Amino acid sequence: MDDNRYQTEDKCAEQLCCWVRQYRKYTLEGACASYIPALQHVNQSQLGICIIGHNGEVIKAGEADVTFTMQSISKVISFMAVCLDKGVSYALERVDVEPTGDPYNSIMRLELKKPSKPFNPMINAGAITIASLLPGTTKEEKFDSLLELLAKLLGRHPKVDETVFMSEWNTAHYNFALAHFLKAEGFLECEVEEALYVYLRQCAIEVTTEDLARIGLILACDGYHPLKEKQMIHPELARLTKAIMLTCGMYNASGKFAAFVGAPSKSGVSGGIMTAVPSRIHKATPFHNGCGIGIYGPAIDKAGNSVAGVKLLEHISKEWELSVF
Amino acid sequence: MDDNRYQTEDKCAEQLCCWVRQYRKYTLEGACASYIPALQHVNQSQLGICIIGHNGEVIKAGEADVTFTMQSISKVISFMAVCLDKGVSYALERVDVEPTGDPYNSIMRLELKKPSKPFNPMINAGAITIASLLPGTTKEEKFDSLLELLAKLLGRHPKVDETVFMSEWNTAHYNFALAHFLKAEGFLECEVEEALYVYLRQCAIEVTTEDLARIGLILACDGYHPLKEKQMIHPELARLTKAIMLTCGMYNASGKFAAFVGAPSKSGVSGGIMTAVPSRIHKATPFHNGCGIGIYGPAIDKAGNSVAGVKLLEHISKEWELSVF
Amino acid sequence: MDDNRYQTEDKCAEQLCCWVRQYRKYTLEGACASYIPALQHVNQSQLGICIIGHNGEVIKAGEADVTFTMQSISKVISFMAVCLDKGVSYALERVDVEPTGDPYNSIMRLELKKPSKPFNPMINAGAITIASLLPGTTKEEKFDSLLELLAKLLGRHPKVDETVFMSEWNTAHYNFALAHFLKAEGFLECEVEEALYVYLRQCAIEVTTEDLARIGLILACDGYHPLKEKQMIHPELARLTKAIMLTCGMYNASGKFAAFVGAPSKSGVSGGIMTAVPSRIHKATPFHNGCGIGIYGPAIDKAGNSVAGVKLLEHISKEWELSVF
Amino acid sequence: MDDNRYQTEDKCAEQLCCWVRQYRKYTLEGACASYIPALQHVNQSQLGICIIGHNGEVIKAGEADVTFTMQSISKVISFMAVCLDKGVSYALERVDVEPTGDPYNSIMRLELKKPSKPFNPMINAGAITIASLLPGTTKEEKFDSLLELLAKLLGRHPKVDETVFMSEWNTAHYNFALAHFLKAEGFLECEVEEALYVYLRQCAIEVTTEDLARIGLILACDGYHPLKEKQMIHPELARLTKAIMLTCGMYNASGKFAAFVGAPSKSGVSGGIMTAVPSRIHKATPFHNGCGIGIYGPAIDKAGNSVAGVKLLEHISKEWELSVF
Repeated sequence: MDDNRYQTEDKCAEQLCCWVRQYRKYTLEGACASYIPALQHVNQSQLGICIIGHNGEVIKAGEADVTFTMQSISKVISFMAVCLDKGVSYALERVDVEPTGDPYNSIMRLELKKPSKPFNPMINAGAITIASLLPGTTKEEKFDSLLELLAKLLGRHPKVDETVFMSEWNTAHYNFALAHFLKAEGFLECEVEEALYVYLRQCAIEVTTEDLARIGLILACDGYHPLKEKQMIHPELARLTKAIMLTCGMYNASGKFAAFVGAPSKSGVSGGIMTAVPSRIHKATPFHNGCGIGIYGPAIDKAGNSVAGVKLLEHISKEWELSVF
Repeated sequence: MDDNRYQTEDKCAEQLCCWVRQYRKYTLEGACASYIPALQHVNQSQLGICIIGHNGEVIKAGEADVTFTMQSISKVISFMAVCLDKGVSYALERVDVEPTGDPYNSIMRLELKKPSKPFNPMINAGAITIASLLPGTTKEEKFDSLLELLAKLLGRHPKVDETVFMSEWNTAHYNFALAHFLKAEGFLECEVEEALYVYLRQCAIEVTTEDLARIGLILACDGYHPLKEKQMIHPELARLTKAIMLTCGMYNASGKFAAFVGAPSKSGVSGGIMTAVPSRIHKATPFHNGCGIGIYGPAIDKAGNSVAGVKLLEHISKEWELSVF
Repeated sequence: MDDNRYQTEDKCAEQLCCWVRQYRKYTLEGACASYIPALQHVNQSQLGICIIGHNGEVIKAGEADVTFTMQSISKVISFMAVCLDKGVSYALERVDVEPTGDPYNSIMRLELKKPSKPFNPMINAGAITIASLLPGTTKEEKFDSLLELLAKLLGRHPKVDETVFMSEWNTAHYNFALAHFLKAEGFLECEVEEALYVYLRQCAIEVTTEDLARIGLILACDGYHPLKEKQMIHPELARLTKAIMLTCGMYNASGKFAAFVGAPSKSGVSGGIMTAVPSRIHKATPFHNGCGIGIYGPAIDKAGNSVAGVKLLEHISKEWELSVF
Repeated sequence: MDDNRYQTEDKCAEQLCCWVRQYRKYTLEGACASYIPALQHVNQSQLGICIIGHNGEVIKAGEADVTFTMQSISKVISFMAVCLDKGVSYALERVDVEPTGDPYNSIMRLELKKPSKPFNPMINAGAITIASLLPGTTKEEKFDSLLELLAKLLGRHPKVDETVFMSEWNTAHYNFALAHFLKAEGFLECEVEEALYVYLRQCAIEVTTEDLARIGLILACDGYHPLKEKQMIHPELARLTKAIMLTCGMYNASGKFAAFVGAPSKSGVSGGIMTAVPSRIHKATPFHNGCGIGIYGPAIDKAGNSVAGVKLLEHISKEWELSVF
């Protein structure tokens, strides 16, 4: 049986290498995020993937070991950190969980609909609000409380890319506009600068595809870390988080991603994607007990998602039936 | 084993009756759809449910045998009918699969975003476009092609409630506005009156909770009818349909429903909900091999969903772990 | 004195001819309205103008005698017809007098702002509502009541261009969308088809620049016809109408037109402009006792205004100080 | 003649006193601006007016000598200061002159329409952009350049109410949102904090109704100061400014104000209104050679205009025919 398992792993790794080679060409169809100066100079042809299975098996292909910043993927962590500290209902009174058809940095809906409650924690307006709710009385404490949860999930202390942080801080006018609007409407629980310090700093945390796969696995297992054999996040919160990722996690292409990949995922403009594949009953497929996937492909599309990463996930999902549907 | 199964069924039926009694009080928090005159005079205290399991077991509770009109639930059928006839990609070129945060009859986004492609087939703009794509050269032929698919899924020929149809036709000014806008923008493949005839007539098709549960079951089984042992809908189309139901099926409360129920569903303003529960690996729970659920509870909330129906589904989902997440 | 007057007239006529020659080149920068099939095939290089002064002096230049359809200029007449019959306050309860920054056929604001009261009678939503308020119980009676007022102002019975009317009727999907939305919101006082029949038929009424100049003169003189020596419209209504023309009459370029021409005007997509120049104290300028101006230049810009017509008016306004400011 | 003039003045002053008494009751229908803490505690029953005629005659009634902050009225001054320094076309490339139907602090349209050019200099987005264009390399220099023009027009150096300035600065989150959005879109020519320092400081400049009447008179006389016998502002700029005031000066009630008062005016949320009445030919009316009017009535309506002030101006305009139409 174990033997069989390793055979499968080997075969999966082989397939994965082949698919990464095949889908790398799509990196040409996107471009590195241009609005954050520090992200512009990255090699856009990169594509890497890491999958961690239920039993701890790790398979990788392509540029899987590159370090990149979390960007919007960090929104998943901050949302869970707030829910763990203040409770789900406290968070949901301040941020809804409805998808919108709008771009992630859109401000319009805050004015259109009163009260201006952000539609979900995966768009910037929601994530900035969530950042303001993090436990702590200073911006440093708030950031540390998020970092602490992340360190617990990763099993290591991640670092902040200070160059990216400064680069974003200095050009974050759309986010400042959102934050001031939210402050005016009473949704921030700290000062604008504090909320944005935390939000922009969380975006600049450095991870690898393996890190993302690890968190994806824990979410896939309803908050249970199958290797440490420990419940890290309450199952209901893990499921809620996956639901939000599925409906809102891939910017305003979340619907198409749900339709053609079908696994809860969150992307970032640095080109990362974190995917949680819950267990399914389809017996013949690899990873049917669930797995976590981390992707890195810095060439992104107009919506903000890794072009080649999405194509690769569509292919894997089809081949290995990763969809929850 | 079989014996065990019937015991479980009996127990489930008992629980269900108890829960329906418990959640009926929420019918007081909603109101019957007022904009369709013929729906206003329904007894709003009704709440009924039917579940059909993988092996054909049927359990019911409350007013499960009442006949009501499909309304928006018919959007699922028309979408599949068009995809079966013209292919998925043909349909998706004309209607996207992205959730919006807007009410179902909103016209604003058609003007805001060019081209005015409807965001998804579950909002009125998308459903009217889909209706115009149905096979057939006359409105009657188009409607019949939809009815044919529905009859195939139900195993019986459903009827149209002519009073409701006429009532909707005479008051459908918002839908006429949408249809004319779509026609102006080139999205309709027939005349406005034809598309609306089909759309409004499909809304007036009469079903029971058992009908909805039956379709839900077929979708849960990826288009395979486990009792007739026959593939009725291509598996990929069934999965796509479930993905759209999950992200867009419950009007602009779809995100919350995904978060707290987590099973692909579509509701209608008559108070119906059709739910497809895919199989899960969690062994100890009832219906872990998947099931279909039909709900009827005509008192609806502001978003357009059966108030008590949603509450009941939240409870069942929690107890029996029906969420895909 | 009289002698002097004719000298001035001759000189003005000469200047006008010169300016029309000079500004005709701007007809190349626009295009004939393409959304109304019957308007597409017009010679777009035309530019004509007629000015009628306080004493009845008529000067013309360019293609001043071409017949064309009123289009949106008719909105001025229908607004006055409703106010004359039902009173200003009745009309203003149903249509506001605020400019919007939106295109004339925009529907968005009707959904954004509740109640969906149209912002002003010069945009389509407002004009369709006004059409529904015209006196009469049938669409023919309503249209005739508008025609009657127009005939009184013109001193002749104008005709309808049936080809243009049918062309617009068959392609009026944006207007049907607006009308159904307004009907849904309770702003129409007759059926959708009736309101649109009247509205589209009024758009197809044929006039010349001299007709427009004549109405412009009456408005300039606060409703008094200086040649017939008769008060045709109540002074307060005439002034209100001019105020609406100045703030809303040139589609969403009304602000720029007010800034650089400064005389109350209404344009139509057929390329007509009707201008009312109130008397001013600046003594040395021609037409300082007020005048009416009619323009025809079918090549229109993106906003819907005659390109060369607007340029010509800017020039005349600067030279002869026609601005009310 | 002179004798006659003073008789008229006396009679006008008498009438004005009577009308102020009559319209003071409308102060009860509004409320002092609540979003600026320092403005909340003002006596809302105040109503004062000052009119300065072409020959320098000054008539006052009610609380005409109270000092209050300019608020949005300062937008007229900053617009002219920028145009005088950089030319009208430079300014109009960065800020349009089109009215919108939106509230003054609306941000939506900046996102809806690309490029996000503010619609006019009388809404906050436009005024903040204009503030950034003022001559000077520091915020102090920019503010001083505006103050200099104002001092020249007033004939005295106005002061800033530091309490109001600090109060606005600390609560200006909507304005910060607008400014950051404009900065992100490239419309500000200095830093966000600088532009807002200038904008909020100009809002806090103290004036009286006589000051406003004096500027109104200069604008009425096309930039010529009839008492100092000196051209202070280029006539074309003065006329342009009056056109913008008429179409955009009274927030999103500008259309109704144009319809029922008809004189170019600008209001502020402190309750001030500055009106420029150009000369008219109607001989029998007072001030037919033009005049400037200043109003103070701190109880404002929802749009942001002095309730009693607007009612009083409607009455005066009707009685003395002040409308340009």
